[in-house]
Amino acid sequence: MSSRGEVAVVGAGLVGCLTACYLARRGYRVTLYERRSDPRQATPERGRSINLALSERGIDALRGIGLDEAVLKAALPMPGRMVHAPDGTLSFQPYSAGGQRAINSISRSELNRTLLEAALAMPGVRALFEHRLTGLDVDSGRMDFDTPAGPVTHSAPVVLGADGAYSAVRGRLQLLPGFDFSQDYLDYGYKELTIPARDGGFALDPGALHIWPRGKAMMIALPNPDRSFTCTLFWPKSGPGSFEELDTAERFEEFFAANYADARALMPDLAGDYAHNPIGHLVTVRAHPWQVRGTGAVVGLLGDAAHAIVPFYGQGANCGFEDCVELDRCLQETGDDFPEALARYGARRKEHADTIAELALANFVEMRDKVASRTFLLGKRVEHGLERLLPGRYTSRYELVSFSTVPYAEIQPRISRQRRAVAAGALGALAVAGLAVSAIRALRRH
Amino acid sequence: MSSRGEVAVVGAGLVGCLTACYLARRGYRVTLYERRSDPRQATPERGRSINLALSERGIDALRGIGLDEAVLKAALPMPGRMVHAPDGTLSFQPYSAGGQRAINSISRSELNRTLLEAALAMPGVRALFEHRLTGLDVDSGRMDFDTPAGPVTHSAPVVLGADGAYSAVRGRLQLLPGFDFSQDYLDYGYKELTIPARDGGFALDPGALHIWPRGKAMMIALPNPDRSFTCTLFWPKSGPGSFEELDTAERFEEFFAANYADARALMPDLAGDYAHNPIGHLVTVRAHPWQVRGTGAVVGLLGDAAHAIVPFYGQGANCGFEDCVELDRCLQETGDDFPEALARYGARRKEHADTIAELALANFVEMRDKVASRTFLLGKRVEHGLERLLPGRYTSRYELVSFSTVPYAEIQPRISRQRRAVAAGALGALAVAGLAVSAIRALRRH
Repeated sequence: MSSRGEVAVVGAGLVGCLTACYLARRGYRVTLYERRSDPRQATPERGRSINLALSERGIDALRGIGLDEAVLKAALPMPGRMVHAPDGTLSFQPYSAGGQRAINSISRSELNRTLLEAALAMPGVRALFEHRLTGLDVDSGRMDFDTPAGPVTHSAPVVLGADGAYSAVRGRLQLLPGFDFSQDYLDYGYKELTIPARDGGFALDPGALHIWPRGKAMMIALPNPDRSFTCTLFWPKSGPGSFEELDTAERFEEFFAANYADARALMPDLAGDYAHNPIGHLVTVRAHPWQVRGTGAVVGLLGDAAHAIVPFYGQGANCGFEDCVELDRCLQETGDDFPEALARYGARRKEHADTIAELALANFVEMRDKVASRTFLLGKRVEHGLERLLPGRYTSRYELVSFSTVPYAEIQPRISRQRRAVAAGALGALAVAGLAVSAIRALRRH
Repeated sequence: MSSRGEVAVVGAGLVGCLTACYLARRGYRVTLYERRSDPRQATPERGRSINLALSERGIDALRGIGLDEAVLKAALPMPGRMVHAPDGTLSFQPYSAGGQRAINSISRSELNRTLLEAALAMPGVRALFEHRLTGLDVDSGRMDFDTPAGPVTHSAPVVLGADGAYSAVRGRLQLLPGFDFSQDYLDYGYKELTIPARDGGFALDPGALHIWPRGKAMMIALPNPDRSFTCTLFWPKSGPGSFEELDTAERFEEFFAANYADARALMPDLAGDYAHNPIGHLVTVRAHPWQVRGTGAVVGLLGDAAHAIVPFYGQGANCGFEDCVELDRCLQETGDDFPEALARYGARRKEHADTIAELALANFVEMRDKVASRTFLLGKRVEHGLERLLPGRYTSRYELVSFSTVPYAEIQPRISRQRRAVAAGALGALAVAGLAVSAIRALRRH
């Protein structure tokens, strides 16, 4: 296999396009194969975005190919959460101690277009649209595709699956003995709703990620550059207050108005959104290994194809972008020995992907339930107080996930160390205070 | 849907054939679709049996259609384990307190033939061989098959997948949103070896399941009616003492002779078995739900297709047979409302399948490692002593799994209750003894 040969990247979504950029920079010839039609010509699917919150890990990956500034120019920074109580009361919770650090609301389809154009502007990169993978031979790197012009066959010594949670590439690897895999669906679905611009301006504060925590359910809203907000309802699939129960426009609207009154008032086309936007599913995918070596080819997985997660920590794309950076690093370390680099990349990334998958599941409970509680708010205030008191020595989990590139699996041990240090410091301070009091008493006695 | 209509059973293995028997008895017309050729004409695949140990759950299911006696006639009872130490020392461990209860060594291919013939002897049952499922539409019950004569299409209002751990029926259901699934491979493979009859007799005691526990690896051997033994080596796939490391006939034979000396002496064709028998894989499959209802059809899963487990508790087929009994019971309860019966069956069986999956994984450690330890043997002796002391009130986990039809998930709670009762009894006995001693002392003092 030539060290600067042909690489097939299946999937021209966010991670596929970024992978193409990184590989092209290393001198590889890259073909992107995409099931959908060219996004530069088509309109995006309705109601399938789950707005993207770009944070440090994703920005760092874009920085690596010089795209960070261009992308952030089109983004809206959200330095905190705005919590909407059932009675309409608002409360703002900053994401960082100083309140300056922000996650960035960005259009998934815009970002995809930017990355695709960046990839295609690099030498040796091409994209074939409306190519649906129907077969893959791991030993030869032979790929069969269905296209509007009929079936076609291509092959490459390196095949990378960046084709998302329902990856066709991974679907083939799943048939190999020894390939571990799981797909776990949440008992929740999601539906997108829209708050349009009002009198030419934002109908809500654009400097926040808005949350309507409702215990067993919630809605979030992220601002768009056109001054609208994209809202996402997360409701149980069945049972009380579920999509199944509220299955007519009337039932849906009545329940929605009763529980999300302030938002309802800002949604003139609630009925249209309800009728036209599908109910999406939320799945966690785990796979192992992320690379399989055949006799004449090697196949690897990146992004959601390797580790789809639920969206509640805003880390899906950010985590996928980190894959591209790590693969690039491993290619560098191995002198572009692709099979070895993929093995090293998989071995390093797996535990981090597993960790963020769990954190994302846990954060759903936090967002829909805990953010509305006083104990939670008090805890956040104490945490931010500590961060200001001990700058650089105490950093919250949220900040380590969203505003650092500390590998996910190293975050919890670090939090535990910080807490032990703070506890020891507090004990030390108490001891010093105790000694001082004793000394004062002794002095007084004399 | 006619309540006594057509049922398609995909897979004519053990569970598929038993399902056909139960359904035919209820009056259904059943077509068995089998990927392989007719087992009544073909020779079984070499080295793929993992001998079957039929125990109470399986026998009970056969009893339900009057096949138990015929099947047991061809079986060899194994009332305990014979443990082979590295130096060739033998020790026998009975499975039950009295030593009479036995699991039964039986040929998988013989049993399959018996069940297939029983099914085909019933009115309304037919079997189509060399039919490989390539497509399934859940809404219409339409099935596409590849056959030697080209592609064919059938349909049925009820489609049951009894097509094993790598089920094609389940493969279609896995594509549906909300369908949870996992496949987890053990880092161990297996290979079958043979101890032929010696001088027309058994080379080892046929009244036992033989185990060579070797810490991280093991071999087992089960007797066959032709006086041979089928042995199964369970070795790590990679690392020290693995199939990967011992990858030539010389290395393999040298290592085998050093660690399984007494068995080696009984294997004249070890080289042939090594060369011709494939290395098998050991997978645990979990799926949920086990039934999906379309607009015009319902699809269900039974046996390994729903819950493949590792073979170390000898429960794979027994558990699959219990599925058939439960489905029959649910059809009875629901007046043959097939969709409702399948839903009820799945809801009831899932936790039991999950439980035996865990027990089977745990039993691998027991078999390959613990059975050779004195602490384990002492524990077994104490347990069997309690069983004899408290007949019917203390039953070991092994006996509840193998010699009862207590649902798997109810076994651990029952064991815990028994232990608490024994502990309370022992405390009570101590208290009584203490009172007696006090009384004697008091009497003496007077």
